[in-house]
Amino acid sequence: MIGTVPDVMQAAYIDSVGPADAIHYGDLPVPPLGPTDVLVRVRAVSANPVDTFVRSGAYATPLPFPFVLGRDLVGEVASAGTGAVGFTPGQRVWCNSLGHAGRQGAAAQYATVAAERLYPAPSDITTEHLVAAAHPAASAWLALFRHGRLRPGESVYIGGGAGNVGGAAVALAAAAGTRVVCTARAEDAAAVHALGATEVLDYRAPGLGEHLRRAAPEGYDVYLDTSGHGVLADAVDLLARGGRLVAMAGLGGGPDTLPLGRLYPKDASIVGFAVSNATASDLAEAAEGVVGLLRRTRWRPRIADRLPLSMTAEAHRRLEAGEVRGRLILEPP
Amino acid sequence: MIGTVPDVMQAAYIDSVGPADAIHYGDLPVPPLGPTDVLVRVRAVSANPVDTFVRSGAYATPLPFPFVLGRDLVGEVASAGTGAVGFTPGQRVWCNSLGHAGRQGAAAQYATVAAERLYPAPSDITTEHLVAAAHPAASAWLALFRHGRLRPGESVYIGGGAGNVGGAAVALAAAAGTRVVCTARAEDAAAVHALGATEVLDYRAPGLGEHLRRAAPEGYDVYLDTSGHGVLADAVDLLARGGRLVAMAGLGGGPDTLPLGRLYPKDASIVGFAVSNATASDLAEAAEGVVGLLRRTRWRPRIADRLPLSMTAEAHRRLEAGEVRGRLILEPP
Repeated sequence: MIGTVPDVMQAAYIDSVGPADAIHYGDLPVPPLGPTDVLVRVRAVSANPVDTFVRSGAYATPLPFPFVLGRDLVGEVASAGTGAVGFTPGQRVWCNSLGHAGRQGAAAQYATVAAERLYPAPSDITTEHLVAAAHPAASAWLALFRHGRLRPGESVYIGGGAGNVGGAAVALAAAAGTRVVCTARAEDAAAVHALGATEVLDYRAPGLGEHLRRAAPEGYDVYLDTSGHGVLADAVDLLARGGRLVAMAGLGGGPDTLPLGRLYPKDASIVGFAVSNATASDLAEAAEGVVGLLRRTRWRPRIADRLPLSMTAEAHRRLEAGEVRGRLILEPP
Repeated sequence: MIGTVPDVMQAAYIDSVGPADAIHYGDLPVPPLGPTDVLVRVRAVSANPVDTFVRSGAYATPLPFPFVLGRDLVGEVASAGTGAVGFTPGQRVWCNSLGHAGRQGAAAQYATVAAERLYPAPSDITTEHLVAAAHPAASAWLALFRHGRLRPGESVYIGGGAGNVGGAAVALAAAAGTRVVCTARAEDAAAVHALGATEVLDYRAPGLGEHLRRAAPEGYDVYLDTSGHGVLADAVDLLARGGRLVAMAGLGGGPDTLPLGRLYPKDASIVGFAVSNATASDLAEAAEGVVGLLRRTRWRPRIADRLPLSMTAEAHRRLEAGEVRGRLILEPP
């Protein structure tokens, strides 16, 4: 299934941080393999907004140059170190934590991945769904369960239920036996309902706050705004006793006013997290959630376009222009 | 040790919410005893600021009138229900969760306490230390360990290390193998150091923020401001990766600006809690911490004054005038 591994591969990489034009596409040596690593023949990579932050330097993280970009991949095992237990050549695999913290990225024909960061890819999930789901679905899983500590029977608010993170969150939360109220554009409401949302509200509707209150009179146990439209003080008021507001980004963008005096009397909390901080074990747990999501729910990631890996710089330009709705997939030769 | 229980007792109670003058002192029936309850002959009660909120109606909570005030007591078992396992007449006991949520209060000669809310009082802890510690030390324990999830080896900031809650927190945190940095008035610094603080900073010193940063270059794993002087945005910046800011009150008083964009990239969280929400099992766990604190550390609660129970209204007036530094203890006849 996998032939001899060459010495050289095609890769999208940078020699220093900079604009999209700083991305080179060309030959790099195939990376070495440590004893607990797996060398993966890459079949698909996603171009992730966070990759643009790594490339530009906006997200400060150790980058050994030349640095291959890209966080997520799906591919096959080319070879495995003697301690990379459980991986065999030809096996289909995926990863969602390359391309930062000193780890070279996915945007190449081959990538070395630590075994603990590599997951088996079930045969009934397509490569493009898996690579496109890898980041947003893992983010949604970590937000709801690791940081939000969502439990069956609870009520959860998801702002932006039609986005990739929001849609994954709706389907994950509904499948976990919780009551899901979310916002979406009116034209997306039916699709979001189909993911299992109890109630889908138009985020532009007048009196949204009152609707949200009526939809969960006891308040929300978990409040997750993926849309960036939220107002912190309103969110705090919508929290149930013991509620957790999970912050993955500045809600409305900039600093916002927090009424602590309305937070603490109900034992509520604001839990910030960035998926880049997730540990290998948290990511491995999330990976099982991602696979379950794709196998057992109707949710599928929105895919904006497929491009050859040689067009990585173009993919970054599109992401930075804000033109992309859904995932951009890059395919190595 | 305990004679026959009378039918009538002296109590400080209200017939409706209102000012301190609404407090009556006089005869009420000794309360009935359910099968898992303990009737306690009360020896000391603390007059707690939260009692004034219950009395005034500022803290909305079910109050069956006539309602006996008071959260904390130390006394002896007068009689125990057949299912109140482990309690025997004459045994010295304490409680810190009466006087709200429908439960009649402590400010009487007798009080009925659910067995799960009653704790043995070790003979080597004085009644006045125990009753004065009951609320602030349990609050500090819950803030640090239940809500702050403080672990050995971590760094903790405690704002207001000389207060009853702050001092208990300093001693608890130091005894738990953590690095404690706190603020206090210059005249209290030596006493706070003696509780085990690594560093005590004058909260009025210029450049306090810079001192706090230098005292914990990696940031604070737990940030607990009991003083009310904190600024939320500064606190967020002082948090370590994964840090928890425990909010027991509005830090600076009113709404404050929260820079969410500086919170989430380091997986930090703001954890609000009010001790009135604590479950019986959380309080029981905290109670062991309170006893350990009084037996194994130098910390002792500051006691402002002792008054007869008949002066409960006067105690409330003093608390509301802001004149009291430390605990007011009320003694039933």
